[in-house]
Amino acid sequence: MSRILDRVNDPRDLKALSPKELRKLAAEIREVIVETVARNGGHLAPNLGVVELTLALHYVFDSPKDRLVWDVGHQCYTHKLITGRKERFHTLRQYGGIAGFPKRAESPHDIVETGHSSTSISYGLGLAVGLRLLQKEGRTIAIIGDGSMTAGLAFEGLNNAGHLREDLIVILNDNEMSISPNVGALSSFLSRRMTGRLARRLKKDIEHLAERLPRGEQLLQLLRKSEGLLKSALTPGMLFEALGFEYIGPVDGHNLEGLIKLFQNLREIRGPLLVHVLTKKGKGYPPAEADPETFHGIGPFDPTSGRPLKEEGPPSYTAVFSRTMLRLAEIEPRLVAITAAMPTGTGLKAFGERFPERFFDVGICEQHAVTFAAGLALEGLIPVCAIYSTFLQRAFDQLIHDVALPNLHVIFALDRGGIVGEDGPTHQGQFDLTYLRLIPNFTVMAPADENELQHMLYTALELPGPVALRYPRGSGVGIPLEVEFRKIPYGKAEVLREGRDLALLAIGNMVHPALAAAEILEKEGLSVTVVNARFVKPLDAELICDLASQTGRVLTVEENTLLGGFGSAVAECLADHRVSARLKRLGLPDRFIEHGAPVLLREKYGLVPASIAEAARSLLS
Amino acid sequence: MSRILDRVNDPRDLKALSPKELRKLAAEIREVIVETVARNGGHLAPNLGVVELTLALHYVFDSPKDRLVWDVGHQCYTHKLITGRKERFHTLRQYGGIAGFPKRAESPHDIVETGHSSTSISYGLGLAVGLRLLQKEGRTIAIIGDGSMTAGLAFEGLNNAGHLREDLIVILNDNEMSISPNVGALSSFLSRRMTGRLARRLKKDIEHLAERLPRGEQLLQLLRKSEGLLKSALTPGMLFEALGFEYIGPVDGHNLEGLIKLFQNLREIRGPLLVHVLTKKGKGYPPAEADPETFHGIGPFDPTSGRPLKEEGPPSYTAVFSRTMLRLAEIEPRLVAITAAMPTGTGLKAFGERFPERFFDVGICEQHAVTFAAGLALEGLIPVCAIYSTFLQRAFDQLIHDVALPNLHVIFALDRGGIVGEDGPTHQGQFDLTYLRLIPNFTVMAPADENELQHMLYTALELPGPVALRYPRGSGVGIPLEVEFRKIPYGKAEVLREGRDLALLAIGNMVHPALAAAEILEKEGLSVTVVNARFVKPLDAELICDLASQTGRVLTVEENTLLGGFGSAVAECLADHRVSARLKRLGLPDRFIEHGAPVLLREKYGLVPASIAEAARSLLS
Repeated sequence: MSRILDRVNDPRDLKALSPKELRKLAAEIREVIVETVARNGGHLAPNLGVVELTLALHYVFDSPKDRLVWDVGHQCYTHKLITGRKERFHTLRQYGGIAGFPKRAESPHDIVETGHSSTSISYGLGLAVGLRLLQKEGRTIAIIGDGSMTAGLAFEGLNNAGHLREDLIVILNDNEMSISPNVGALSSFLSRRMTGRLARRLKKDIEHLAERLPRGEQLLQLLRKSEGLLKSALTPGMLFEALGFEYIGPVDGHNLEGLIKLFQNLREIRGPLLVHVLTKKGKGYPPAEADPETFHGIGPFDPTSGRPLKEEGPPSYTAVFSRTMLRLAEIEPRLVAITAAMPTGTGLKAFGERFPERFFDVGICEQHAVTFAAGLALEGLIPVCAIYSTFLQRAFDQLIHDVALPNLHVIFALDRGGIVGEDGPTHQGQFDLTYLRLIPNFTVMAPADENELQHMLYTALELPGPVALRYPRGSGVGIPLEVEFRKIPYGKAEVLREGRDLALLAIGNMVHPALAAAEILEKEGLSVTVVNARFVKPLDAELICDLASQTGRVLTVEENTLLGGFGSAVAECLADHRVSARLKRLGLPDRFIEHGAPVLLREKYGLVPASIAEAARSLLS
Repeated sequence: MSRILDRVNDPRDLKALSPKELRKLAAEIREVIVETVARNGGHLAPNLGVVELTLALHYVFDSPKDRLVWDVGHQCYTHKLITGRKERFHTLRQYGGIAGFPKRAESPHDIVETGHSSTSISYGLGLAVGLRLLQKEGRTIAIIGDGSMTAGLAFEGLNNAGHLREDLIVILNDNEMSISPNVGALSSFLSRRMTGRLARRLKKDIEHLAERLPRGEQLLQLLRKSEGLLKSALTPGMLFEALGFEYIGPVDGHNLEGLIKLFQNLREIRGPLLVHVLTKKGKGYPPAEADPETFHGIGPFDPTSGRPLKEEGPPSYTAVFSRTMLRLAEIEPRLVAITAAMPTGTGLKAFGERFPERFFDVGICEQHAVTFAAGLALEGLIPVCAIYSTFLQRAFDQLIHDVALPNLHVIFALDRGGIVGEDGPTHQGQFDLTYLRLIPNFTVMAPADENELQHMLYTALELPGPVALRYPRGSGVGIPLEVEFRKIPYGKAEVLREGRDLALLAIGNMVHPALAAAEILEKEGLSVTVVNARFVKPLDAELICDLASQTGRVLTVEENTLLGGFGSAVAECLADHRVSARLKRLGLPDRFIEHGAPVLLREKYGLVPASIAEAARSLLS
């Protein structure tokens, strides 16, 4: 039997479908999503949760004339499937294939590129104002999850939209999860769904009573005066109405016809409007419904059982961080840990289970995570703030103003530094060495492998001031983990092999490829010194200058932008110490790095042993 | 007659004072503040607004055992005067003197360094958790203005505090102003003070009615059930109670005895508590009461009249930006302007008055300002987002993810780049060239003088993608403003004078000092090429490499951190192009720059003609 999906090449094609066909389409889409993600990995649970919502929006509104802005964008698979990308959907998240997030180059229906959370309301408000000022037709609809709603940026957007009274529809996709179950007062507030019913019952009771009373009419009048207020006080709408939004909901986000009717009605409503839609993460795929956290973002798995396809290999950096935190917590009672809605992703879940009193999941609030950590440090605790490299960008000023200026001892564990791969440009950790290095008082380290990660974390406990530890996504290099923790000498690089022709300075996960490059070169008769720099700040200026003077040739390698990063620090160091040497820097170019398997991207950007060796040869020529 | 203030050397001394004495003390403090700010400049209106509030807090609580966290910190003068700093208070904001913001090195009563807004709740929550986990005695009190409350970080802090149910007192100092009159839905919401009274009257009416009715008791019972909800629905507390805070207020922030009684009562209340205090900015000094915006932060003025002491001199960069925006708006209808609560400071006030439809003050919400601008740009408007250098740090990820990744044409006008002077480390714009340069797709310019500023702004209108324009605080150099706008050639530096011994590459406000240095050197027989770099990105690599090859010696000068900045870009450029030349870089060192007059700080950090000349000599030696 032919699929309905085969007939949908554009959202307009939806409008010809019957309710029954739409429901069938939803089932087909779920099938494609599960099958594709099972093969390629990706965001499963969030996408399964919004199938009906997406179809209803596209059925009623006219994209791209009407602007659909997907917050974060990890729920855009249905949107992609019905906006002309179903044929290429099997290439999801693969190099050169369909991106896992909205991408303007792919389709006019993708209004913005996204990947980070909580931007949709601000974007949407800008679009709405733009449409009005430029007298274009079209409505703006921002679709945002309840997790994303906890971030300050979303609040700023709501507050400004409520003030401007612009035509903006915000769809609050409430699944009671961000990535992990939600935290925060807002979250418990949103779930007070019973109270709406309570309010209605209460009102009915009073009305009933009033009818039987003399002067009941007077009472009913009073009641009516307060009715709107009472209603808003008793429903989750209260907060949004306080901010100037009209509130509608909560409504069932899996009832396609209900959603369509609702959207048709509110199409004509003007001003800021918030529609509270209840959905279930993972809807329609039992393993994901049962464990939406694991199925939020997932690698390849067996679609029948939902079991991940076992990848044999060394433990990930995340896993080593996780177990090191547990060990350190035993020996250092002041150690506390903070995550911004990523207990599983950062590896802090075990810490939180073992030491619930010392663990804080603050929600998708990187700014608050950092300043809160600063407060903890002020009292003498030792907070480890574990935030992915790309997301710590969201707390840049908090790093500078709230932590570094008072020189507080907060440890930042930046997982996903460098190339992260399939999640693409919004998730690559390509800027951190630069944006951390420029901050006074900061120590910036990157371990060469998972064994060094544990020692560095141990060392960080006793360093003064703020310390950042940056390590990559994925598996370690597979070397044994030493049992005893060891102090890494402060600001000292480590010479791994000595040679006379060239000094190869590598940082973090580029150390092992550099060693491999040196072996290639050795076979060609070239003798190379390889240094594990360990510290981007403070740089081991003495060693670097010595080696540069001795060899006259320095090659740096980092998985970070070439602008202002490790190699740039080396260039500064040589200039400041008046050391004349030829310097070549390898790293990520000045562009956003696309999605694709890390191995392909490292190859492309010259961060593999063969390219490092080639660069060394050219420097020696 | 002796002053009460003379007897107050520590907050404990307050506790011996009678109500009458406390009131007299408040008057004395106002006198000292007005007199000192009239002489040294500073934040006047915010400090005059919190005299009673500060005295009441210190009277009831035991600082520093109890942690008083001042949000922003521009209201800490009374706090400083009664915590042992009155003798040195006349040195306020002067080099080596008392800082205008809290400073831990000055006193144990200053819990954190601040200067940026909206950090106090997150800090306070960290402190409260720290006190509890480490079993220390003490309460935590965060004092935050209604303007600061609009920023996302404050919301994140509230949301997390409501969730953790920690012992935290938040004092909302509501003066209906941030720096300019407040904007945003939250603001209009806070001012719904009448509704509280309405609620009480309504309740009384119903009670009265119920008493006269048969079965009235039953009705009253129902009423009581809904009473708390009704109350919260009708007072400004609604929002905070939604987030899990107990709400008290609004109360009169100038009634000392009332405040003292209130604070004594709530000392024993546990859990998150928000006290809504109404104050008047500028209270007690008529010129500041009448115009709190002008008297928010002000230079020296005549205390009798309140009139600023006229400074003769060339127009400020801000003024030139202001008038250029007006002119450009006439020729470019798509131009719109955005400020984050700084219409006066940024110079956009005139634009807002002339083009209210095209002007957006989004409140203290830098993140939203940037993403909102991105939305406007997506529709085809040309937004100019004017945010001080130090505050744009707060939107770092929005610059990367929301603007640069989709390569949107948003123009950022960064006033207060480089040394700002008396406001100190929290306000210096010392990082921008580095943190902007690392972002792909960005163009980063800095004008040599106010005339070039207008041409660069004009040029920015037609450049693709995001453009940042960075210029300093204060007066221009005094050169005439050309009437006709002129296009600055993209990515091209300008050779201002030619010489054979050395290439002196200067950016932004360091160009004129570099020229002066060249003249000093010329008298000594040294011949120096001086380049106005204009672009930090893209760098004029061709010219720089040519000059470096010709002279073999390059000296860079920038008013920005030396880490990853302009000089670092030049170092990268020379290395990448295999140009061998001696390079010396002048700029700000890797530390936070203290407060003091800009002229003193530039002297200290070697950014004046004599030091530049000296550096050139050493490079030539």
